[in-house]
Amino acid sequence: VLINVINPNTTESMTEKIGACARAVAGAGTLIRAANPTMGPVSIESHYDEALAVPGLLEQIAAGQAAGADGHVVACFGDPGLDAARELAGGPVVGIAEAAMHTAAFLGRGFSVVTTLGRTTGRAWELAHRYGMAGFCRNVRACEIPVLDLEIPGSHARDTITQECKRAVEDDGADVIVLGCAGMADLCRFITEQVGVPVVDGVAAATRTVESLVAQGLTTSTRSEYAAPPAKTYVGLLDGFTVGR
Amino acid sequence: VLINVINPNTTESMTEKIGACARAVAGAGTLIRAANPTMGPVSIESHYDEALAVPGLLEQIAAGQAAGADGHVVACFGDPGLDAARELAGGPVVGIAEAAMHTAAFLGRGFSVVTTLGRTTGRAWELAHRYGMAGFCRNVRACEIPVLDLEIPGSHARDTITQECKRAVEDDGADVIVLGCAGMADLCRFITEQVGVPVVDGVAAATRTVESLVAQGLTTSTRSEYAAPPAKTYVGLLDGFTVGR
Amino acid sequence: VLINVINPNTTESMTEKIGACARAVAGAGTLIRAANPTMGPVSIESHYDEALAVPGLLEQIAAGQAAGADGHVVACFGDPGLDAARELAGGPVVGIAEAAMHTAAFLGRGFSVVTTLGRTTGRAWELAHRYGMAGFCRNVRACEIPVLDLEIPGSHARDTITQECKRAVEDDGADVIVLGCAGMADLCRFITEQVGVPVVDGVAAATRTVESLVAQGLTTSTRSEYAAPPAKTYVGLLDGFTVGR
Amino acid sequence: VLINVINPNTTESMTEKIGACARAVAGAGTLIRAANPTMGPVSIESHYDEALAVPGLLEQIAAGQAAGADGHVVACFGDPGLDAARELAGGPVVGIAEAAMHTAAFLGRGFSVVTTLGRTTGRAWELAHRYGMAGFCRNVRACEIPVLDLEIPGSHARDTITQECKRAVEDDGADVIVLGCAGMADLCRFITEQVGVPVVDGVAAATRTVESLVAQGLTTSTRSEYAAPPAKTYVGLLDGFTVGR
Amino acid sequence: VLINVINPNTTESMTEKIGACARAVAGAGTLIRAANPTMGPVSIESHYDEALAVPGLLEQIAAGQAAGADGHVVACFGDPGLDAARELAGGPVVGIAEAAMHTAAFLGRGFSVVTTLGRTTGRAWELAHRYGMAGFCRNVRACEIPVLDLEIPGSHARDTITQECKRAVEDDGADVIVLGCAGMADLCRFITEQVGVPVVDGVAAATRTVESLVAQGLTTSTRSEYAAPPAKTYVGLLDGFTVGR
Amino acid sequence: VLINVINPNTTESMTEKIGACARAVAGAGTLIRAANPTMGPVSIESHYDEALAVPGLLEQIAAGQAAGADGHVVACFGDPGLDAARELAGGPVVGIAEAAMHTAAFLGRGFSVVTTLGRTTGRAWELAHRYGMAGFCRNVRACEIPVLDLEIPGSHARDTITQECKRAVEDDGADVIVLGCAGMADLCRFITEQVGVPVVDGVAAATRTVESLVAQGLTTSTRSEYAAPPAKTYVGLLDGFTVGR
Repeated sequence: VLINVINPNTTESMTEKIGACARAVAGAGTLIRAANPTMGPVSIESHYDEALAVPGLLEQIAAGQAAGADGHVVACFGDPGLDAARELAGGPVVGIAEAAMHTAAFLGRGFSVVTTLGRTTGRAWELAHRYGMAGFCRNVRACEIPVLDLEIPGSHARDTITQECKRAVEDDGADVIVLGCAGMADLCRFITEQVGVPVVDGVAAATRTVESLVAQGLTTSTRSEYAAPPAKTYVGLLDGFTVGR
Repeated sequence: VLINVINPNTTESMTEKIGACARAVAGAGTLIRAANPTMGPVSIESHYDEALAVPGLLEQIAAGQAAGADGHVVACFGDPGLDAARELAGGPVVGIAEAAMHTAAFLGRGFSVVTTLGRTTGRAWELAHRYGMAGFCRNVRACEIPVLDLEIPGSHARDTITQECKRAVEDDGADVIVLGCAGMADLCRFITEQVGVPVVDGVAAATRTVESLVAQGLTTSTRSEYAAPPAKTYVGLLDGFTVGR
Repeated sequence: VLINVINPNTTESMTEKIGACARAVAGAGTLIRAANPTMGPVSIESHYDEALAVPGLLEQIAAGQAAGADGHVVACFGDPGLDAARELAGGPVVGIAEAAMHTAAFLGRGFSVVTTLGRTTGRAWELAHRYGMAGFCRNVRACEIPVLDLEIPGSHARDTITQECKRAVEDDGADVIVLGCAGMADLCRFITEQVGVPVVDGVAAATRTVESLVAQGLTTSTRSEYAAPPAKTYVGLLDGFTVGR
Repeated sequence: VLINVINPNTTESMTEKIGACARAVAGAGTLIRAANPTMGPVSIESHYDEALAVPGLLEQIAAGQAAGADGHVVACFGDPGLDAARELAGGPVVGIAEAAMHTAAFLGRGFSVVTTLGRTTGRAWELAHRYGMAGFCRNVRACEIPVLDLEIPGSHARDTITQECKRAVEDDGADVIVLGCAGMADLCRFITEQVGVPVVDGVAAATRTVESLVAQGLTTSTRSEYAAPPAKTYVGLLDGFTVGR
Repeated sequence: VLINVINPNTTESMTEKIGACARAVAGAGTLIRAANPTMGPVSIESHYDEALAVPGLLEQIAAGQAAGADGHVVACFGDPGLDAARELAGGPVVGIAEAAMHTAAFLGRGFSVVTTLGRTTGRAWELAHRYGMAGFCRNVRACEIPVLDLEIPGSHARDTITQECKRAVEDDGADVIVLGCAGMADLCRFITEQVGVPVVDGVAAATRTVESLVAQGLTTSTRSEYAAPPAKTYVGLLDGFTVGR
Repeated sequence: VLINVINPNTTESMTEKIGACARAVAGAGTLIRAANPTMGPVSIESHYDEALAVPGLLEQIAAGQAAGADGHVVACFGDPGLDAARELAGGPVVGIAEAAMHTAAFLGRGFSVVTTLGRTTGRAWELAHRYGMAGFCRNVRACEIPVLDLEIPGSHARDTITQECKRAVEDDGADVIVLGCAGMADLCRFITEQVGVPVVDGVAAATRTVESLVAQGLTTSTRSEYAAPPAKTYVGLLDGFTVGR
């Protein structure tokens, strides 16, 4: 089984970290292709970044398909381009927010999301509603840490996030924590030890979810909404995305 | 007042039609800039098309800003890129699905949306939930007419859509109809006469909504989520979208 | 275009203020008829007041109709008698809570309402649910200012309300404020400058909404629920309200 | 115990029928005061009728109070004026739609309401949402029978209603029926025998609910929203409703 | 009328207290059979306890049936086994959480539940959602008092609970209190005097609700879901529960 | 990894089938312990059956724990005793309805459940709400096949179920099917081939979900609600369930 784990921003150190976390949790015999786009933003911290990360994400879905991937992970907590990726891909596609929230729902009565910037909490809540998980979501908390600070060895990020997780347990009554950024994937074990409740990393959760779907022979329904996109001409800068050429 | 009405696909005949419908409803002294992107799909009929229409849409938001626009309309019923456009624009931005659904809610107990392809109904429902309008939405009905067929003079599209609207009134108990595609804007008067209930065209609704917001001195909140996107490098094909250069 | 803006209480100074705010935002060529009932309470601060304001409101809907009004505004934040007014009127009818909440939804992720008395917050929440806007409503806050104190020049009302708006932004995370009383209409500009987020006045919002509906040729559906009330005898004190005589 | 059962329309034959149904179900030692207003519509079939029935309803709440009533029933399925009545009354006030829906929820997984005119179904759904009962409500069905036809001996009303109840059981999967008009109270036994599922009459349900609340020493909270209305001058035709004179 | 009030735990002093509270509120001519199982836990403080209280509860439903009971009360705030009891019983069955929440909804805009242990608050919220009462539920507060401490004369339980009720009124804005444990039934009058808002005891509420249903000739629908359980062999320790032998 | 898959009824042929389906989907190195209780009903077709299956289920959770199980599956579509099992077990516990619904949500816009008896559809809807999946659930359809008919070789069950699945796709617009009974696990492949959309078997889904949770080092939160049940005496027939002896 080959799983295509896409970091939708263009920062390679984050891609490597994400790939390592995916490999650490994958089952025997599962291979991970960790990749990032050749175009788009170096980190995703706004709706604008998220929107402009999608062409590069779709490029990597196609590249993963060509490489024989059985399924795909979108490794950014805004789950950018998930619906479009499902139309394009032959195998299942899972977002890390989606996987993390569903996973948390098996573990307790309510989770809090701990994420990077306050300006992204609206999107996290919107996804919780979209996925049916709003009733489980106690809070979405921001640490006001820029995404790329998570890539700096020795930064205060780890401690700041851990403190916010502890507040989520105490103040929100959360009995599960969801880490709200792919860049936090390597902190999951440390934070778990500190906060005393289950801590869910979306990269691990999504990797295992895709693996499970593939094992069950399941993929996105092609009946109507998620069928392959109709043949269509694309023009200008994006003519490379033309379908059915 | 200058309103920037953006057709997010690249078909100019549709842009012209949309511009004409916006001008027909705008108040005295309001000017309409009708535009479409230089890049992306010729029509929007899938999540893939929608995602890839967004860079071009953002290009036109920026172009409208440069031209002095006081506000913007996103004239595709999937409301692509609305959140990103709000971050980028100085004035208010309104989507046609958003405006049409809110407008319909002032007119009756429940509306049905009549749209083009069945594969887009999931997105329409998702928007109804996002906007708080799901409780007013009786149904989303598709005519299985490709978007560009609406551009063909003499096609059966008008009659097919009218019949579907009549079924919405009879079978769904809708007391208002929402037209689910910018390409239907010119049919609004005809269908109204045929079905005997109010029929809302999103292009007209969004144009007047933006005009009203501007008149009230209102624009998108810049407090947190919709503040201007943080400065950020974009690479590769999309390097032109770099913020704060 | 003639818009009939009804203050449902019998205090004329408030009617004049409301009329001035409506005129300030109306488009070129729009005339405002500002009126209040000849019967009922001097202010509306309870369900009892609200219920007994409705006959006078309906009297003024009828009077506005007779004067040739194209549409109507119900200028009390409880939106009293809105459904009945829609049955009676030939043109569209919009409440100020309704218009303000819908307007706020175009501007940010979530609004807080700042209103007069705590005993009215239940009604504001009920309306938010009725209009589909509960998901956008972060809080309904009361200043414990009686409605008619807003009519006293030099009172502390303006400062008290402004402070509560600031708390809404800080504590509720609201990125938009909705003023919860028609009597606050003249404070909108001042508070906007103080709090740094968009502040929506329902009188302005409803006036522009009615104007927009009229421009689009839209009015309340007469298909079933909002058709004209059936002919019916009224007796006693209210015999003047007999329908179809 | 004295329960004040108010028919909010002015048709005395209906008041008598409602009183008889209340007496039939009341406990030993409970007295029923059945009354109707001296002002307002002869039947309630629109939002307009409902709004204009409220002053007369409040008059009868006050009259019942003066007569020593321990609690009050609002015997019209639109539950007109319920909130205002709660502020005015010393004892509990229950509407028949409210009582019937809550009662039905104890009896099965889902109920359908069978009512008179189609134009009133929107209000019934609104009440179901207000009371938290929408999740139990399978459908609201109308027989298109004017309310006063229920007062005509030998009309087809009984059979028409029974047929609609049977359709509710078969087509909606309802396992309980709620009768949607006070004028149907005397049909409850007959319809129960015909349809084979529990049939709830709101007049009986509300009478027993008020009786139960009184027995438990419970009445409307006077803490904030439902405290007595503030002293207030009323003018014109409605000056008799002045509070605190 | 004979009402079978079942304390689902095996502590007889609690059964006696519950029986006394039921008798105190029951109408003239109503007899109360207060009983507890011969098997199961001495108190119910976890999902595990709740699940294992159900066989004993069903034993007592059957015993009550044999004794001629017209209806049944499940007197534990988790409403254990309610659906199963409805299938088994000939008359109506009401849980005390169910009855208390519905009753509170007649009395104000929102209630808070005050219960024993924090670990049971998740179940209370789940019931509030199941019954449609989540919109009325402001909070579920725990006093961290073990259930059987309520049986110890002179314990601090009464004061601790009263303080928590006061906080619910002040901090949650609740205008009604619901007592979240059958063991608190005897405290209802005292707490009411202390907190100044209506306080609902589920044992009283459920007893009167069952009495009301019986008076109206209403019982659980037998149409589909709640029909008698199909004949079925039970084996091993539970063979005594075989149906249709 | 050892996963304890519990069939909560006492029919061994069904246990064997469930075990085989779990083994077919489990990853390399995962062992399956398939077991059923020694007490309780031979099949689960009512709330009564479901309630009385729980003691036996808990017995098998404990037995699985003793055998070293890393996690547990509750293999009945009513997910009986799930909360109690989570308190008792050291590792994660997943129900097959829970796993199937969450899994289906990754695959399309909406699923329909196809189950055995109509009387169980209410429970399936209740679980969909509990799990946040009601927004994805298009319908719950029953085939009116008793559970044990699924154990009869050559019965018409397979064809009847397949036909119902086809109707779900056509009439409900479902793009995914969820099989609503553990006894259907072996039909998943056949039905998938017939209906052309993904078909989810809860036994497979739950087995892989537990395996994924174990791989991520995740188990039920022990912070509050799902902590081990407090020490407690059980009496009578159920004294063997005493905690902390």
